[in-house]
Amino acid sequence: MNIKITGVGSFIPERIERNSAFDKNEFLNEDGSVFKQANKVIIEKFEAITGIRERRYIEKELTNSDIAFFASERAIKDAGVDPEELDYIIVAHNYGDVPHDGMQSDTVPSLASRVKQKLQIKNPHCVAFDVLFGCPGWIQAVIQAYAFMQAGMAKKCLVVGSETLSRVVDPHDRDSMIYSDGAGATVLERTTEEGGILAFESATYSFEEANFIFFGPSYNKTHSEDRRYIKMHGRKIYEFALTEVPKAMKSCLEKSGVAITDIKKILIHQANEKMDEAIVNRFYKLFDQPTPAGIMPMSIHELGNSSVATVPTLLDLILKGKLEDQNLEKGDTVIFASVGAGMNINSIVYKV
Amino acid sequence: MNIKITGVGSFIPERIERNSAFDKNEFLNEDGSVFKQANKVIIEKFEAITGIRERRYIEKELTNSDIAFFASERAIKDAGVDPEELDYIIVAHNYGDVPHDGMQSDTVPSLASRVKQKLQIKNPHCVAFDVLFGCPGWIQAVIQAYAFMQAGMAKKCLVVGSETLSRVVDPHDRDSMIYSDGAGATVLERTTEEGGILAFESATYSFEEANFIFFGPSYNKTHSEDRRYIKMHGRKIYEFALTEVPKAMKSCLEKSGVAITDIKKILIHQANEKMDEAIVNRFYKLFDQPTPAGIMPMSIHELGNSSVATVPTLLDLILKGKLEDQNLEKGDTVIFASVGAGMNINSIVYKV
Repeated sequence: MNIKITGVGSFIPERIERNSAFDKNEFLNEDGSVFKQANKVIIEKFEAITGIRERRYIEKELTNSDIAFFASERAIKDAGVDPEELDYIIVAHNYGDVPHDGMQSDTVPSLASRVKQKLQIKNPHCVAFDVLFGCPGWIQAVIQAYAFMQAGMAKKCLVVGSETLSRVVDPHDRDSMIYSDGAGATVLERTTEEGGILAFESATYSFEEANFIFFGPSYNKTHSEDRRYIKMHGRKIYEFALTEVPKAMKSCLEKSGVAITDIKKILIHQANEKMDEAIVNRFYKLFDQPTPAGIMPMSIHELGNSSVATVPTLLDLILKGKLEDQNLEKGDTVIFASVGAGMNINSIVYKV
Repeated sequence: MNIKITGVGSFIPERIERNSAFDKNEFLNEDGSVFKQANKVIIEKFEAITGIRERRYIEKELTNSDIAFFASERAIKDAGVDPEELDYIIVAHNYGDVPHDGMQSDTVPSLASRVKQKLQIKNPHCVAFDVLFGCPGWIQAVIQAYAFMQAGMAKKCLVVGSETLSRVVDPHDRDSMIYSDGAGATVLERTTEEGGILAFESATYSFEEANFIFFGPSYNKTHSEDRRYIKMHGRKIYEFALTEVPKAMKSCLEKSGVAITDIKKILIHQANEKMDEAIVNRFYKLFDQPTPAGIMPMSIHELGNSSVATVPTLLDLILKGKLEDQNLEKGDTVIFASVGAGMNINSIVYKV
């Protein structure tokens, strides 16, 4: 028995927020002091490092569970499954439903329950729950669906990654330009077909790293300390990711038994283009191999970092032929990899 | 191979909030109108139905992840395991860390990451994540740990249920008197010993029921709509629970192959004593059996409804001989059951 992704769908919000939209932001340092550079310079430097030119924000009237539902509908249609046959709906996110005019995360009922309701599924044995695991949440939820199927507890699972980071960004923080909104969904099924999930790797580094990504007050010290925003220690994350992600990917690949030269694509979480390039270069260096051209499809230029949604959205774009010069054929082997709040790292070797 | 709970621990906050503490509350109806009865009458009626005389609130300086950690430390000590050997830390909650002086839920990093950090576990292969599944979250997380172990993906898991509902209650809502704070933790291990998890049942009813428990504004309409609180449609929940919970328990018991007469105790989520009695009576009626005296240990009188913490805390109290006239011996078979936001229902038949 193998476990395969039989359907993929994503929701990319229509509203484009270009870098120029941040021209008028008052960017501050963590201590509240004003940046010496002009915004134009800050934004140019930001784009040169991260590769991000624009990002997507959802419309005011939408919430995270709405877009999780949109992506889910598409994945179910793509898989051609009857939604009533789903054994589990697992939604990975980090901040719940945050309304555009409020600051409270709404997580009761779970987003998975809301998605199930919107899908109008009646079968009570379709069990819906949420998973919080930082940006690597979608991969983690796939690993959980895999566990349910391996244990004989499920045959068909809907696994969603959905996040609306635009609802938790501090306009005075340069890092706010990284974050984006989006949702990606996948249907996983037990099958006798060849391929599917060949190996996985998962890790939590919390001893010193737990607060590398955290919830903190605005850099504008005149703002109320009551409202907190997504915050990160970028330099620490960069060093951590560069050391640990290639090792996790290597361990995962070795478990799979697949040769490095048989890897067709690496679908890695998109938070910073330079960092992703450095991770993948170091990964190939661990095998004494040069990094193949085009191995790492990028969506970051237009989509920014949409957290848990990034990897499944990237997969959807490639499989649907919507990413220039990128494609995947049946029988191709890919690596999924992610790093994020926790700090968590995970990876899957997957044969299409 | 069997999967057993090898250690249990709980944290019951020291601060006791008696019913008399609500004497001065201005209780309102959902539409904002004032109750006709005096608070004394409201509170007496509340106590007569729910059985709740007092509840526990955490101290100001604590948060949900702190008490999850306290319970975890105790469960690990009770199990006698090396925390570095844990494969997973799964924390079930619903509202994250809500500070006493704020209204935002803090869920980044996950509470499981925070617990792992507080436990000073260094092993990165101890994977820490959170699960949101309403009040049945702890049982759901146990089922997930079971799946990991059945799939050969884990040997030892820490499964925690922790909640601080005192941070999300509307003082103008009578239902606020139900809610309490607490944490319960368990270590689960693969073992060749007899017993453990014999069967489980899990269900999500969201088609019409998704919003029976929800996040809504204060009943005091002069308050800002920005701040929302835990809210419930008590009458609908009562009818739903009475219909569906006994059926789920019956299905679970039948899967286990255990005879109804061999059930020693039923550890059911404690939200309303009259409702729990009605559920258990109906359950026995499904088997044409009278309800045995003392079958359902109650903690609700002193501990109220501490959400995901209720069932593991109850188990801890019984196993440690801290609940009057209640005990469990090796070889005894019990049923765990829970119902809550989602609406979710689950049950486990477990042999001590």
